[in-house]
Amino acid sequence: MTTVVDSSGLTADCYSAKCPTRQVLDQIAGKWTILVVGALLEGTLRYTELSRRIEGVSQKMLTQTLRGLEADGFVTRTVYPTIPPRVDYDLTELGRSLAGPVTALRQWAEANINEIERARRQHKA
Amino acid sequence: MTTVVDSSGLTADCYSAKCPTRQVLDQIAGKWTILVVGALLEGTLRYTELSRRIEGVSQKMLTQTLRGLEADGFVTRTVYPTIPPRVDYDLTELGRSLAGPVTALRQWAEANINEIERARRQHKA
Repeated sequence: MTTVVDSSGLTADCYSAKCPTRQVLDQIAGKWTILVVGALLEGTLRYTELSRRIEGVSQKMLTQTLRGLEADGFVTRTVYPTIPPRVDYDLTELGRSLAGPVTALRQWAEANINEIERARRQHKA
Repeated sequence: MTTVVDSSGLTADCYSAKCPTRQVLDQIAGKWTILVVGALLEGTLRYTELSRRIEGVSQKMLTQTLRGLEADGFVTRTVYPTIPPRVDYDLTELGRSLAGPVTALRQWAEANINEIERARRQHKA
């Protein structure tokens, strides 16, 4: 396990309820975060492009996810003073560094779906 | 992107709202799933051991997470007819194959916590 000493002299550990990494895990491990970060890896997107790319995401969830990612320094939001205003979203360097784990999780889901569906049918039976 | 043809002849794609991978992503990308799978990678654990290992998890969330993992074929639950009954949880082969992505995400959180906390302070200011 990677251990990092934070500014308070403690070791980073997601298993500790009070460790700030727990909250970070909650943010980066979300389904919508994974889909938003994956979409932005392909390049800058406007809000409407993101909402089309991530089928079925509600406006509320997309806005909430983007705000969280912005607050944590994963995403930048650039507003252009056009009429109507144009809003661009981009990954920061920190956001790009999430690419590896986030893509791995998404690809794992896509690669193992048949086995999971088989397990679900057996479990029901 | 990994693409897999499922039994209905469609390509697996988490970005498609109706694709079953979306639901799988929701299950495996959860904070509690990541912590439970990580804990079970170290070996068989009883319910009480899991609840101690994952500080701050409520009984409701732990039970719900374990049931989901069992239904998806990630975890086995073995009940021994002792008094009181002993219940062991173990990863299946499918559950073990989740180790890579799940560990990567947890370690990413632990390794980048300082930078994220810096971004949060800047965002607030």
